[in-house]
Amino acid sequence: MVFRVDLNSDIGEGFGNYVLGMDEEILNYVTSINLACGWHAGDANIMDKTVAMAKEKGVYVGAHPGYPDLLGFGRRAMAIKREEAKNYMLYQTGALMAFTKAHGVKLQHVKLHGAFYNKACVDPELANGVLDGLEQLKDEKIILMALSGSYIAKEAKKRGLRVSQEVFADRGYNADGTLVNRSLPGAFVKDIQEALPRVIRMIKEGKVKTADGQDIAIQADSICVHGDNPKAIEFVKQIRQGLVEAGIEVCPIETFIE
Amino acid sequence: MVFRVDLNSDIGEGFGNYVLGMDEEILNYVTSINLACGWHAGDANIMDKTVAMAKEKGVYVGAHPGYPDLLGFGRRAMAIKREEAKNYMLYQTGALMAFTKAHGVKLQHVKLHGAFYNKACVDPELANGVLDGLEQLKDEKIILMALSGSYIAKEAKKRGLRVSQEVFADRGYNADGTLVNRSLPGAFVKDIQEALPRVIRMIKEGKVKTADGQDIAIQADSICVHGDNPKAIEFVKQIRQGLVEAGIEVCPIETFIE
Amino acid sequence: MVFRVDLNSDIGEGFGNYVLGMDEEILNYVTSINLACGWHAGDANIMDKTVAMAKEKGVYVGAHPGYPDLLGFGRRAMAIKREEAKNYMLYQTGALMAFTKAHGVKLQHVKLHGAFYNKACVDPELANGVLDGLEQLKDEKIILMALSGSYIAKEAKKRGLRVSQEVFADRGYNADGTLVNRSLPGAFVKDIQEALPRVIRMIKEGKVKTADGQDIAIQADSICVHGDNPKAIEFVKQIRQGLVEAGIEVCPIETFIE
Amino acid sequence: MVFRVDLNSDIGEGFGNYVLGMDEEILNYVTSINLACGWHAGDANIMDKTVAMAKEKGVYVGAHPGYPDLLGFGRRAMAIKREEAKNYMLYQTGALMAFTKAHGVKLQHVKLHGAFYNKACVDPELANGVLDGLEQLKDEKIILMALSGSYIAKEAKKRGLRVSQEVFADRGYNADGTLVNRSLPGAFVKDIQEALPRVIRMIKEGKVKTADGQDIAIQADSICVHGDNPKAIEFVKQIRQGLVEAGIEVCPIETFIE
Repeated sequence: MVFRVDLNSDIGEGFGNYVLGMDEEILNYVTSINLACGWHAGDANIMDKTVAMAKEKGVYVGAHPGYPDLLGFGRRAMAIKREEAKNYMLYQTGALMAFTKAHGVKLQHVKLHGAFYNKACVDPELANGVLDGLEQLKDEKIILMALSGSYIAKEAKKRGLRVSQEVFADRGYNADGTLVNRSLPGAFVKDIQEALPRVIRMIKEGKVKTADGQDIAIQADSICVHGDNPKAIEFVKQIRQGLVEAGIEVCPIETFIE
Repeated sequence: MVFRVDLNSDIGEGFGNYVLGMDEEILNYVTSINLACGWHAGDANIMDKTVAMAKEKGVYVGAHPGYPDLLGFGRRAMAIKREEAKNYMLYQTGALMAFTKAHGVKLQHVKLHGAFYNKACVDPELANGVLDGLEQLKDEKIILMALSGSYIAKEAKKRGLRVSQEVFADRGYNADGTLVNRSLPGAFVKDIQEALPRVIRMIKEGKVKTADGQDIAIQADSICVHGDNPKAIEFVKQIRQGLVEAGIEVCPIETFIE
Repeated sequence: MVFRVDLNSDIGEGFGNYVLGMDEEILNYVTSINLACGWHAGDANIMDKTVAMAKEKGVYVGAHPGYPDLLGFGRRAMAIKREEAKNYMLYQTGALMAFTKAHGVKLQHVKLHGAFYNKACVDPELANGVLDGLEQLKDEKIILMALSGSYIAKEAKKRGLRVSQEVFADRGYNADGTLVNRSLPGAFVKDIQEALPRVIRMIKEGKVKTADGQDIAIQADSICVHGDNPKAIEFVKQIRQGLVEAGIEVCPIETFIE
Repeated sequence: MVFRVDLNSDIGEGFGNYVLGMDEEILNYVTSINLACGWHAGDANIMDKTVAMAKEKGVYVGAHPGYPDLLGFGRRAMAIKREEAKNYMLYQTGALMAFTKAHGVKLQHVKLHGAFYNKACVDPELANGVLDGLEQLKDEKIILMALSGSYIAKEAKKRGLRVSQEVFADRGYNADGTLVNRSLPGAFVKDIQEALPRVIRMIKEGKVKTADGQDIAIQADSICVHGDNPKAIEFVKQIRQGLVEAGIEVCPIETFIE
């Protein structure tokens, strides 16, 4: 049996004069990127430059829309309506598509950012607004990248959309498949010795052990990793190498998702 | 001989809770709209709603990108580089194209807003940045709407782009074809009795009398009108009626520009 | 017995090129204004001009800080921390104080805007953040204007701060003293014949009938009114006249609050 | 004869999630800071935290207002009017004063940022707008920090305002006292061996050699230094040590400016 997985990372999250993360470095190890679209982070110049870099390295590009909250980096939930969720998603994704088109690459996927991502995992109004927008992009090849097993992932499947079930290499899971809150014990899995066999098991067996010790089912199409600092980059490098050594093919979701 | 002209108006220039102009009304009289893209004015919800209205009324949609200056309504010149001009134009136009695609209409044209528009008439760096962006949209059907005879209009022609030469029904002209500054005498032509024969002459004879009394050559593919208030709407209504009575066909630029 | 009440209105809620409400008109009828500070609405030019107008008409000025959400007009709850609430309040109020100082008037009060106002009525973390900020203004004369009987009003009293208990002439009340949600029946009291005796009773008897017909206790130091349109202005005019005819003195809270 | 000089640095120029510069480090070496006020950079949380740090280290605080252009970091000239310059300056300085008051420190000075700073050196309308605002702060102790010998510095003197003439340790000068443009040869003086005797001469002799080799008169009340990176911090440390060894007292401008 052939196992395949995508490695994705948030990218392009600077703004104007501000630099965030090691974008050039992380592009050496991931197969897909989630590119900020100017609302929670990112700007037109960064988007242009990042698409160019991704193309050069053969990394696939996705949109990473967020709340209109640069001050809060899109991490604060905002009470927006279904219609607004749709329009916010369309605006940001459309803006990015001007740059993917300019550079002659396809937009592979859309992954929500921060509080927009988290809320859409559980909030039907928000999730359906986003899915309405995804459908209105009028390109059925575009994939939704969402938390494995979440409401929005299931709903997207029901609508016949392409979905990439996403897992986290460095985060603990609750029994219901959600991530352990960052402020609670068991939220993080920082040791590569622990994290690597864990993601390999997710991919090969479709299972993960939760923070309270149970085994739950999980589907891992893509693994989210980070490029914030040299240590994070090293972690990703080791994850990738470990996956390859375990016989798992690391490639963009576009190449193996139905 | 058949004469044709397009009537265009800026639209969708509210923001969030703010309303500006009589958008629904003006859509009854123009053939093309320049839709704000969220930087100098406009937002995702307004863009969505306005494209829907335009589609319903058969009015053609263009992008109206501006400087990132909501506080100044895009009317203050900003020192930006060629690369930035390209990216700012791509970002905003791309965002709008998500909405035109969603509603199943084509983006007909791009017209710059305010100080962005004015500066691109005379500033090669800015103009060429915008034209770079226009080319990178990868759709050679998209028309540039620009001040008749301006630097950017000529340069776009040289590049083989489609260009709509724009004239103003209610503004005075200098001998070099630029508009008389708003603070100077002769800046405005507010009387319909004067304005109407003037635009008819521009269309049929390709000439206009400047503020200081000379005749200059001018090409009129599209006439810019305004929908700010009931009086402005009435002016547009009379302009349109007068054009039709003069045997001039009023239709979207897409239908007659080469 | 002497009865006194303040009439307050939100004001200065335009932004740049956008105009909102009939600011000059409403200043003729109210005794206090809540002036937007540039985050949910308002800008430096509007603040300057509005303080000047208020001074000329003898109307007292208060700060009206909101969430950093111009797009949503500050009406969308945002998850911010106590420390942030304090700093957001200080920043906006400080900005306004530069203008009150410039014009030689005192800042009378602070009233939160929109979702910031509503959430602080019931959320201890937010309310206490705001009160921390109020104390850090280092001017014990500055009054907090808050929903009559709300958590933040009570907490401010406990801290020894000056508080103006605010009531609404045109809104229905629930049994717990909160306002009936705008989407529910009984949310609005639009008829002046009903609204006027209602506010007079609040002032003279300290009671109001709730949407479900009970009498509850309520303290009315200030009545919130609106200046959005000519009809609203007329409503305020009649409220003021009716209060005066009922022997109630209409004057700024500063003049009668302990 | 006693020589005194102030060392100042821009600070607090992060935004939300973004960090810029080594603020804690630079506070060990300077005597005054120019604190960003949330328009070109900085936010309410950063302002609060930075004032607290400055107070703890005995460093004096000034406001650092900029253009409303976070995307361009306030480095792009914008066409604003005198009245707007006044109001923009008042708004930002007032916002900061809420934090200085909260922490019980005085606002020592105001120094404009970026393109706002540069343009006010030569543009009477902008400069006078800023000075109008400075006067309207109604505190004659507040000092204007401006380029030594610039239009705004001279004009402020004429108005009887306190002025700190600012020089740059690491920049070349033109014959008219302006800085050599960053893109031209001679723009920078990066070698401490060259920079140190140069600033000592400015302080003791009131002279500096221009990029083309002439000696011009210059007054040095305060030296601008930077805290962007470890190398810049080391440069400042050596400048300070060198000044002290040359018998020059390094202390806040407040303590020695008339």
